[in-house]
Amino acid sequence: MPEFLHLISPSAALEKILAALPQSWAAGIEVIPTREAHGRILAEQVSAPHPLPPFPRSTVDGYAVQAKDTFGASGALPAYHRLIGEILMGKAPSLKVQSGEAAQVHTGGTIPDGADAVVMLEDTQLIDGSEIEVHRPAGVGQNILMEGEDVQQGDVVLEPGTLLRPQEIGGLMAFGMTTVSVAVPPRVGVLSSGDEVVPPEMEPGPAQVRDINSYTLSALIERLGGNPVLRGIVPDQHDALFEAVKQAHQEDDLVIITAGSSVSARDITGEIIQALGEPGVLVHGIAIKPGKPTILAIADDIPLIGLPGNPVSALVAGALILAPLIRRFLGLQRVLPIPQVPARLSVNVVSQAGREDFLPVRLQKSEEGIVAEPVFGRSNLIFTLVRADGLVHIPSSATGLSAGTDVMVTLFSPEL
Amino acid sequence: MPEFLHLISPSAALEKILAALPQSWAAGIEVIPTREAHGRILAEQVSAPHPLPPFPRSTVDGYAVQAKDTFGASGALPAYHRLIGEILMGKAPSLKVQSGEAAQVHTGGTIPDGADAVVMLEDTQLIDGSEIEVHRPAGVGQNILMEGEDVQQGDVVLEPGTLLRPQEIGGLMAFGMTTVSVAVPPRVGVLSSGDEVVPPEMEPGPAQVRDINSYTLSALIERLGGNPVLRGIVPDQHDALFEAVKQAHQEDDLVIITAGSSVSARDITGEIIQALGEPGVLVHGIAIKPGKPTILAIADDIPLIGLPGNPVSALVAGALILAPLIRRFLGLQRVLPIPQVPARLSVNVVSQAGREDFLPVRLQKSEEGIVAEPVFGRSNLIFTLVRADGLVHIPSSATGLSAGTDVMVTLFSPEL
Repeated sequence: MPEFLHLISPSAALEKILAALPQSWAAGIEVIPTREAHGRILAEQVSAPHPLPPFPRSTVDGYAVQAKDTFGASGALPAYHRLIGEILMGKAPSLKVQSGEAAQVHTGGTIPDGADAVVMLEDTQLIDGSEIEVHRPAGVGQNILMEGEDVQQGDVVLEPGTLLRPQEIGGLMAFGMTTVSVAVPPRVGVLSSGDEVVPPEMEPGPAQVRDINSYTLSALIERLGGNPVLRGIVPDQHDALFEAVKQAHQEDDLVIITAGSSVSARDITGEIIQALGEPGVLVHGIAIKPGKPTILAIADDIPLIGLPGNPVSALVAGALILAPLIRRFLGLQRVLPIPQVPARLSVNVVSQAGREDFLPVRLQKSEEGIVAEPVFGRSNLIFTLVRADGLVHIPSSATGLSAGTDVMVTLFSPEL
Repeated sequence: MPEFLHLISPSAALEKILAALPQSWAAGIEVIPTREAHGRILAEQVSAPHPLPPFPRSTVDGYAVQAKDTFGASGALPAYHRLIGEILMGKAPSLKVQSGEAAQVHTGGTIPDGADAVVMLEDTQLIDGSEIEVHRPAGVGQNILMEGEDVQQGDVVLEPGTLLRPQEIGGLMAFGMTTVSVAVPPRVGVLSSGDEVVPPEMEPGPAQVRDINSYTLSALIERLGGNPVLRGIVPDQHDALFEAVKQAHQEDDLVIITAGSSVSARDITGEIIQALGEPGVLVHGIAIKPGKPTILAIADDIPLIGLPGNPVSALVAGALILAPLIRRFLGLQRVLPIPQVPARLSVNVVSQAGREDFLPVRLQKSEEGIVAEPVFGRSNLIFTLVRADGLVHIPSSATGLSAGTDVMVTLFSPEL
């Protein structure tokens, strides 16, 4: 337990690196077709060039009338209106509705001049082609969307830093904005170090393993809105690693090094990062499990993250650290709480006070609701995470959680 | 209220169309680079071609020894071991550890023949270059990952229908599987109908509005794992619409028509879908708000969805219907509960019994936690949804929710 007491909490670690990043560490801007902008972050302010709706529209199928002509109307005592024609969809109405007159209108159709209400088809009776009965009174404005009721001309409708979801794409298209300025995703350099690591396409020798981290982290980076730049496998030797990290540091917006797993390999990573520029290493070790040996650094305005070499630690700590960094780079303004799935823990779980644990669990349906079953397995085995649906966060104040505890599960992939 | 009593619930509507779809309505298979497979659905079974780890590995930095030599060891009474060398990372060990011997090993390094435990560096003392003291006993297997401890050779590690998350990508790479068979996304044809609708790049005339639905739905379809095929704007005329829908029906895996908003336009859509093939329209109207006039149909094994013309209804009903259809087509096997954000409703909200309401809300932080503030606005205005962070589902049994009620909010975009 004592080792964790020296270590910084993940939130304090994040605050430290975010506070040390200069304002200039921010995305560039590119203009892309709005059709392809889903999931991107808006980089400009958008004001309405015209009101929406652009003209008063009916919300129902019925007849445009003057409301005062329908006062007191009922089935027993209908209000009679002369039918003067039909408002065609997509055509400017040439009709003008005067007292005692009605014009047929469809949902979404333009309200003709003179009319100030629409009576629903269901509340009318067509007498013959030239006259209708209205069986219910209509108030002024009834069943009408006013011009500008959604948005007035000149209203600021989208601020820079807005995530473009389907509705924002639709809103831009409603104004004819078929291109849009968005933040350029950060280039995130990913280096895997380790003398025992070979690329996936190679047949490993007797004491070698294939690179996993470059690919798990690339997939994660893409999901978080970044642009992964695979910089390959580097041996755990000071000079080779220094040159590789230096190049990434010069070319990328953010650099990740998954350290070789031994203490000496981790020490080399720390030294190299420290040597790259000021202020250097800010955090060396975080009170989390998995992911303790994480390094956070900034060298000459570029953040560098040293992640543990084992795939589970790299992925869990990577998500924790990269998400806020990439959001900050992209300028996302509205950060919402992470959606989770409530579940009941199936068994007792121990953890150390002073350390935040992230426990991989698999969700099971049961008669009493959803159960979170811890996925047993040592933390450095990739298929532990394959069997898991998400993580349960055990706060640093806890020494464990009892079976039956209500927990919130953060899913690995909430997309589908 | 009575109108909703005739209508089918959304879950029953979905069951109806899913049950009527033939088994053959399923994705084709394509082989792609594993690096690009994040978010895709696996279309093959994957068995382990070799164990993982492929050889016994140390989980710590320390010394590989024979456990029995350390029994009873303590700081006061250390067990002395002759240091016979270092196990280099990535090299097959040429050493063999015999009783009374120790070999230095790094985290991830191979356990040499003869050794059955690793003592941690912290529990040892190097006497000189040739001898160490061990201060703590080690059990057999201690600090060793056994060969195959994660996965045994021949184990089925991934089933067809698995969503490929970062960890699955990593697991495939660990086996050298740099290409993978995945489900081909469904082609989802999207038609917007309406005489008043013009493309976004056009300047609308006096009674015209720009197409929104093609673009909101395309973005949604992409997020759900589908391949949107924009089929443009079709006038609300039977023949033109029939030809356009027929072509989509022949070429696409799933067809969506956002109907013109008037009753007659919706009737045309229903007729056209009915005429395309057997069994035709299965559901005409669902007890939801927004989205009531939704049509679900199957014609000659291809599902067709008629969505309401107003953008909010189209998007909300579209998400509800398309997500399970696309998942079914792709063959996703493990469907997890939707993660949500717990919040407290800020005001009283009325709803109709017999109808499921989806209320757009904006999340606000307050001293008492997260508050869900309904976004007021008529349901057919796109910027209502721009202002909203997510939806609160009001069940059909409720006649509303009181201010202060604990609700679960489904976010529109849980990605960032």
